Amino acid sequence: MSSIQHSRFLSALAKQPVDCTPVWIMRQAGRYLPEYRAVREQIKDFMTLCKTPERACEVTLQPLARFPLDAAIIFSDILTIPDAMGLGLYFENNEGPKFKHRIQNMQDVNALSVPNVEQDLDYVFAAIRLVIKELPSHIPLIGFSGSPFTLATYMVEGGGSKNFHRIRQFLYTEPEALQLLLEKLTTAVTGYLLSQIAAGARTVMIFDTWGGILTTESYQRFSLQPMSKIVAKLKQQHPNVPVILFTKNGGLWLREMSDSGADALGLDWTINIGRARQLVGDKVALQGNMDPAILYSTGDRIRQEVAAILDNYGPGSGHIFNLGHGIHPDIPPDNVKILVDAVHELSRTKHMATI
Amino acid sequence: MSSIQHSRFLSALAKQPVDCTPVWIMRQAGRYLPEYRAVREQIKDFMTLCKTPERACEVTLQPLARFPLDAAIIFSDILTIPDAMGLGLYFENNEGPKFKHRIQNMQDVNALSVPNVEQDLDYVFAAIRLVIKELPSHIPLIGFSGSPFTLATYMVEGGGSKNFHRIRQFLYTEPEALQLLLEKLTTAVTGYLLSQIAAGARTVMIFDTWGGILTTESYQRFSLQPMSKIVAKLKQQHPNVPVILFTKNGGLWLREMSDSGADALGLDWTINIGRARQLVGDKVALQGNMDPAILYSTGDRIRQEVAAILDNYGPGSGHIFNLGHGIHPDIPPDNVKILVDAVHELSRTKHMATI
Repeated sequence: MSSIQHSRFLSALAKQPVDCTPVWIMRQAGRYLPEYRAVREQIKDFMTLCKTPERACEVTLQPLARFPLDAAIIFSDILTIPDAMGLGLYFENNEGPKFKHRIQNMQDVNALSVPNVEQDLDYVFAAIRLVIKELPSHIPLIGFSGSPFTLATYMVEGGGSKNFHRIRQFLYTEPEALQLLLEKLTTAVTGYLLSQIAAGARTVMIFDTWGGILTTESYQRFSLQPMSKIVAKLKQQHPNVPVILFTKNGGLWLREMSDSGADALGLDWTINIGRARQLVGDKVALQGNMDPAILYSTGDRIRQEVAAILDNYGPGSGHIFNLGHGIHPDIPPDNVKILVDAVHELSRTKHMATI
Repeated sequence: MSSIQHSRFLSALAKQPVDCTPVWIMRQAGRYLPEYRAVREQIKDFMTLCKTPERACEVTLQPLARFPLDAAIIFSDILTIPDAMGLGLYFENNEGPKFKHRIQNMQDVNALSVPNVEQDLDYVFAAIRLVIKELPSHIPLIGFSGSPFTLATYMVEGGGSKNFHRIRQFLYTEPEALQLLLEKLTTAVTGYLLSQIAAGARTVMIFDTWGGILTTESYQRFSLQPMSKIVAKLKQQHPNVPVILFTKNGGLWLREMSDSGADALGLDWTINIGRARQLVGDKVALQGNMDPAILYSTGDRIRQEVAAILDNYGPGSGHIFNLGHGIHPDIPPDNVKILVDAVHELSRTKHMATI
């Protein structure tokens, strides 16, 4: 029973019995919270907020003060590594991320050096150390990074994209340059996540936002393989720190992902979580997967959807409830309270038999 | 043998023997062709071109003059129906489509009337009649429409979107309004495709560009079900006119789609076509699915990818080669020639045994 009292979230990741299904929310520290917007009134620049450990710590903890969430996630951005590589990350008018410089050819890749993560990304580890001091012991902190392919996508596109023509062109015309870029990023992400663990993160999650734009073959080579390498290196040093992989639009490849060595897979909302469980069997835990847009709806509808997802997952542990993507900035916080309470309340009976 | 001489494309749709795998290309009449850009120099406004039957006919035929393609597709836009419903479709600076008015609530849906397609969309049928006169009899013309859900998405978003917050909010907060909108669109699309068939289209394709943003449950209810209704009505009147359904990012739902009554399913590039064939069995033909970005690459690489896709599909008929999405505007036309020739040449041996 002690692991349950320690952390529902870690128990579910290990597929150990839990008293109820744990829940956290991607982007739970963010613009939908008035207290977050108040901080952003003072610190207008997003990256300045990420780089100010005291304030990053403050916003990390904001949703935990409001809702009985089962995990915290360090407030940061998935693109800190390319920023540390000198590409000049910036955000303009609530639009997506942009880079001052983008990668166009082998010469650009050759010119990139793997960052000294300990030094260049110290602001992240400092924020983690501050959060750890404040968090109760049963609420683990999640560290994270973008996946190598996702970082490469932003670096080649120069920011977000609608059709990803540049990265897909790069893949077919400069495969060696892409391979080298991914190797550098794999080294950097590995070091970055190891340092986050050293600073106190008890789980790490790799966000592969754009692996889903690839063919099956390219996904395996350019996205899944680098992630699997990272998992293997993390596990060498920290066999007990769970790793979560999340490829958005990766529903077709769950079986392959479940062989990556990761402890859990994140699911977006397009796949039925019951079908996903059938695909991956007992190999991994599953995290997800409510459509964030449900939170625009009524309390009844939200509870109904929570019940359906819990039911689709089925009996036993191994499910961490979450949205299928980050929460939208215009969601009423009251609906998040309804969601979190519904997950705990509605899952309690089904776990009763197993503990 | 006569059906083969008549049309490779129709034979493959019927899973009848062919001498080689047929090929056409989504957006084969488009900006990558200098002769198309020359027309656009004269007619700057995209919708004016669509609405001028002689010029729409001219650009429809342009790619056929260059490449030995096995089908033509009428030059038009997937959003002609909402335009005919009075939403005011326009295109600005090569950006995506936009509407002057967008649908926000039940009142807006109630105010929409189903267009009189025969009259309001006559420019499309006029263009089809012109094309039919020019096309050799072994090259069928494909008619098409956006799917009801895809049209609804554009109508609610007011144009394209990156995250589809509006349509997904609408779905959960105004499900009755969405249902009514889809019913009106289902009626309109059915009439529209019937009239295209009457004008001479020998196959019709429904483009469901945005069904892939939905949960499995919502996809079935809001996208697949309206499409299945359309297929049923078309088949009542024209049992021998093949229907192709294409849901982008629909790889998870191919099995359900194969029960829709459609003759063939379009595949984007994310799924391996061999795996897709395993999923759908013998129920439907498959169209696709090369990543359009391959066309940025070299002739050797293109031929290699064509061979891989033909090989993944495996023996027998039932495959129409295509890209997994529309061709990009900056592709060299010479690479399209290489692609089309490679499909015919590399597939010839594997069909030899069966005819």
